[in-house]
Amino acid sequence: MPSAKLTWVEDAMFVASDTRGHTVVLDVKQEAGGSDSGVQPADLIMFSVAGCMGYDIVSILKKKRANLQRMTVEVEGERAPEHPKRYVRLKLKIRTNPEVSREDIQRSFELSRDKYCSVLATLRSPVEFDFDVGTE
Amino acid sequence: MPSAKLTWVEDAMFVASDTRGHTVVLDVKQEAGGSDSGVQPADLIMFSVAGCMGYDIVSILKKKRANLQRMTVEVEGERAPEHPKRYVRLKLKIRTNPEVSREDIQRSFELSRDKYCSVLATLRSPVEFDFDVGTE
Repeated sequence: MPSAKLTWVEDAMFVASDTRGHTVVLDVKQEAGGSDSGVQPADLIMFSVAGCMGYDIVSILKKKRANLQRMTVEVEGERAPEHPKRYVRLKLKIRTNPEVSREDIQRSFELSRDKYCSVLATLRSPVEFDFDVGTE
Repeated sequence: MPSAKLTWVEDAMFVASDTRGHTVVLDVKQEAGGSDSGVQPADLIMFSVAGCMGYDIVSILKKKRANLQRMTVEVEGERAPEHPKRYVRLKLKIRTNPEVSREDIQRSFELSRDKYCSVLATLRSPVEFDFDVGTE
C-alpha cells in the first residue's frame, strides 16, 4: 500500500518523505506565512500529473524505438476564485524533439491518457477520504 | 495562474520546477525502469494533500495561540487493482503534541477539510483537462 509521512518543521515548512527515502521540502511564499524554502503543496498536483504522463510517454516511445532526445511538459492550472480555490482545469503542453514522429507522440500520449496514467485517472474521479485526527 | 514545467533528464527521471525556482527530482524504482533517484509522480498526490492540510491546520492553530510543538501527517493510499490504478481512497492520520487541546485540533482540521484545503477539494471533484501534444 503506498504511503507517505510529513513532519512539520516550523511556520509553513514541512518535510515530506516517501517509503524509499526521498524527501521533498514544502513551504509557501512569505505573503502566505512561509519562508519560500520549498514547493507549495498545491503545485505538487501539477508536478504529479505532468510527471506521470511524461513517464508513460517516455516509456512507450522507448518501446517504439523512437528517437527521443528531449521532452518538456508545461502545466497551467485554473483555480476556482472562492475558497477552497480548487483546481477546476489543468492544461498540459507536451513537446519532444522534432525527430519523433507525430504519430508516435500522439499514440503514446493517448495510451497514457486513456489507459496508464494513474494520476490523471485520480484527478478525473472523486477520491474518498478517511481522517484520524488527534494528539500523540 | 499557477504553472509548472517538467524537463526530462533520462530514463524515468524528470526535474519539475515551479515559478519560484524550487525543483523536485522525479524518478521511479529500478523495477519500473528508473534509477530511484527521486520521488514517484503518484506519491506527490499524497505529499500534496497532506502538506495542504498540514499547512492549514498549523496556520489556524497559530491563530488560536495553541501550544503547537510537533505535527505529523501520515498518509496511506488505496489504489484500484487494474490500470490505470487510480487512487480510490486516501487515509490521513494527523497528530500533534498532547499540549494542543482536542477541541482546537479538531476545529482546525474541520476548517481545512470543509473550507480551506484546495488540494483536498481538487481531489474530491473531477478536474477538467486540456492537452496540447507535439514536437518542438
